[in-house]
Amino acid sequence: MEWTQEKRYLPYNKWDADTLLHLQAQAANSPAQMHYHLRPISGLVNDPNGFSFFNGEYHLFYQSFPFGAVHGLKSWWHFKSKDLVHWENLGIGLEPDAKADSHGAYSGSAKQIGDKLFIMYTGNHRTDDWERIPYQIGVWMDKDNKLGEKEILFKNPDHISEHFRDPQIIEKDGKYYAILGAQDEKEKHGHVDVWSSEDLKDWKELGFLDFSDKDMGYMIECPNLVEVDGKNVLIFCPQGLDKSIADYDNIYPNMYVVADQADLENHTLMNSSQLKNLDDGFDVYATQAFNAPNGKAYAVSWVGLPDISYPTDNENWANCLSQVKELTIENGKLLQKPVDAIKSLRENEQSFIDERELTTKAGQQYELKMKISAGQKGNLYLQANSDLSENLKLSFDTENGELVLDRSKAGEVSANYGTSRKIVLAKNKDLDLDIFVDHSLIEVFVNGGEHVLTGRFFTNQDSQKIVFDNETSYQATLWQMKTIL
Amino acid sequence: MEWTQEKRYLPYNKWDADTLLHLQAQAANSPAQMHYHLRPISGLVNDPNGFSFFNGEYHLFYQSFPFGAVHGLKSWWHFKSKDLVHWENLGIGLEPDAKADSHGAYSGSAKQIGDKLFIMYTGNHRTDDWERIPYQIGVWMDKDNKLGEKEILFKNPDHISEHFRDPQIIEKDGKYYAILGAQDEKEKHGHVDVWSSEDLKDWKELGFLDFSDKDMGYMIECPNLVEVDGKNVLIFCPQGLDKSIADYDNIYPNMYVVADQADLENHTLMNSSQLKNLDDGFDVYATQAFNAPNGKAYAVSWVGLPDISYPTDNENWANCLSQVKELTIENGKLLQKPVDAIKSLRENEQSFIDERELTTKAGQQYELKMKISAGQKGNLYLQANSDLSENLKLSFDTENGELVLDRSKAGEVSANYGTSRKIVLAKNKDLDLDIFVDHSLIEVFVNGGEHVLTGRFFTNQDSQKIVFDNETSYQATLWQMKTIL
Repeated sequence: MEWTQEKRYLPYNKWDADTLLHLQAQAANSPAQMHYHLRPISGLVNDPNGFSFFNGEYHLFYQSFPFGAVHGLKSWWHFKSKDLVHWENLGIGLEPDAKADSHGAYSGSAKQIGDKLFIMYTGNHRTDDWERIPYQIGVWMDKDNKLGEKEILFKNPDHISEHFRDPQIIEKDGKYYAILGAQDEKEKHGHVDVWSSEDLKDWKELGFLDFSDKDMGYMIECPNLVEVDGKNVLIFCPQGLDKSIADYDNIYPNMYVVADQADLENHTLMNSSQLKNLDDGFDVYATQAFNAPNGKAYAVSWVGLPDISYPTDNENWANCLSQVKELTIENGKLLQKPVDAIKSLRENEQSFIDERELTTKAGQQYELKMKISAGQKGNLYLQANSDLSENLKLSFDTENGELVLDRSKAGEVSANYGTSRKIVLAKNKDLDLDIFVDHSLIEVFVNGGEHVLTGRFFTNQDSQKIVFDNETSYQATLWQMKTIL
Repeated sequence: MEWTQEKRYLPYNKWDADTLLHLQAQAANSPAQMHYHLRPISGLVNDPNGFSFFNGEYHLFYQSFPFGAVHGLKSWWHFKSKDLVHWENLGIGLEPDAKADSHGAYSGSAKQIGDKLFIMYTGNHRTDDWERIPYQIGVWMDKDNKLGEKEILFKNPDHISEHFRDPQIIEKDGKYYAILGAQDEKEKHGHVDVWSSEDLKDWKELGFLDFSDKDMGYMIECPNLVEVDGKNVLIFCPQGLDKSIADYDNIYPNMYVVADQADLENHTLMNSSQLKNLDDGFDVYATQAFNAPNGKAYAVSWVGLPDISYPTDNENWANCLSQVKELTIENGKLLQKPVDAIKSLRENEQSFIDERELTTKAGQQYELKMKISAGQKGNLYLQANSDLSENLKLSFDTENGELVLDRSKAGEVSANYGTSRKIVLAKNKDLDLDIFVDHSLIEVFVNGGEHVLTGRFFTNQDSQKIVFDNETSYQATLWQMKTIL
């Protein structure tokens, strides 16, 4: 099918139900489909939205175009969970049914205020001349997950271009703030714009967030500010960032800075760190984080990137979300760890010590937790076939401190932005890996979450070998992971 | 919406996708919706179909009309499971897309033959004059759940009326058999009709199954023959059965007989028992059973009945499936027990001894396992509010041997066929109850599965008290049950 503009923006009621039923069945039956990560019920998934704790449960939405593996008319698809691991699919949650979001209910956030959930998001409206007007919209959801009236809160002021979106709602000292991704109209550079309101109705612009003296590329998307162990972490996506400011390999980066304090009234982060990549793998973007009532900061990422294609595009579905990651700061470092409840998915535990071949039948849903002793070099092949012509390779050097994830032989993956990702580690230290595989998704948590490498791969379903190329001193535990959806 | 004939039989591609998305969200968000039973993704669910073990997993389909709480154009919706408890939703599995099933892919069965699943079902075709032709259709499903070409195997012979459906495929002694529900053309009485084939293509009629000298009403639906502990159990639905033959309270009964042997070649069950109700509750029909490769017999029921309405009709969805029940015969009695894996859903165990009030917050998903000592009379209220004006009542008499399930105060339920169901038990014996509640569904397993009482109820969500009306000697354990879908 050719995805014309008309087709992408066709109202959902102009699509037929039989097509949707087949798209849903196609996504559910795909061998590449994830089974313990949130993934498309049909079509394309992008940014996580509205990640929040409401009425005693975690809520999470994602951007959805239910009709194909392209960016078309977006809605929010709704899930909830008691433990951040087992999710219940609640179906379409927020639809582009107002004039202000006529061309998409774009990304946003949510926060329980009183006994309702306040959702703040960007309505993407196009005029007849295809001029984009980014309306920032507020809508209340009640305990039965029913939405109230959508209200336009504000649009881009004159000095900000049409690239003005993804509001994060923040409550601080009895006042509400929103931070948004923005591009200034004059210089066309990326910014985080700060707004405030006393009542969630009248909003005023406070100004661009001062957190770096560097140029943030041509546009910023998906800013989130969360408190983590007394620090303030700003997670954001600066498109067009100069690689001399912070190096990255993906088409667009998902970066963060850590600041000592956030003074939103004065739109300033105090003592911000340099920019760092949030994920060192291939496919993470648009991460959304929030502070839960238990005091913890949780993050979840879109596994997928704008302007990148994947083999399942041919199956009419694309992308997924990462597992939820708990953020902590230890010894001045931001760590990302699997949430504790992920252990509830483990079954069929197997242990290994120093064996070259762990298994030829790892399955396609597993966790492999491993400590590789210091002072060694070698390769660990995952999802490998018998002659290793197909594999997902982790090359480690625990003498000089290096780890490389190489997907050059992991099926049909885009090579435009390189097929390996390298991280530098402390020298002569044991290497801790917590590896999660879910059909076509790998997440590698390195040294207790100092790094995460997330990527997609498309090896044959039968390629299930886990093997080292050489004698290696290690300890490992392998679990099959249960299906959640 | 008025459900005209035209609307019920509208092809799926004439429905719009937005309507379907909203119906799915409505079903997912309904407070009455089940969360550890298979339930509608949208619209109406009826008979379980194609219950089988294939490619290392259990497969189960249900009859689905995805667009509303009425019997319209039916398809099969597909699920699979490793343990008969955690099910994966695979979406629409078999659609009415051939001339032979133009008015519905009606009920049928499935069996792994070679490395494929052979599905045999009834295509409901209506001529322009609205005359029904029941085609029996075969179709192969491969390991990727893709269907081959549908082939018409046979239709009703002249001596059988249009009521000829629900084939169960059976393999025995290197030959294939199918048993079908039927009505003879001349007398308009119900029968089970037996067919055979060497190659699954050419079929010949062997004759009506001889299993009773009684009149089986005006029509039989959904016959299944399974081997249980050396006996042959025939489960079936004789509509219009005279209550002098076997008493029942529901609009239509789901009955069974136990025979010593089945001689399908001579279409005879040897030494059949009297007819008995398979379920002693309000809402079980169209139970489908099969023999798994592990030698066990499993059954699953439609919780719902033809020609009965339910309050969720107003929410555009209706009915669900029961949990899977393992069939055994002990001391000459057919027992139905929860499968062992249902225990994997238990959490938050609480124990009780003799306390009058167990809890005021039972939640809406729980298992309550209880032994009430012999020689007592009383009432146990479930899903009760504070003044007991709303409740689901179990009245027990362990002196005279009686148990009554009363839903007269359990919200808006149909009263046309009575609001209580009584079973007679041995006198002066302890009473074992294993009670499963899932939002608007209750299943009570009595004395290790000697009886099962299944019913729907529609109490307020906040009515969660479990209390005895008097001091009672008992032991009980209560677990919350995890969500599977």
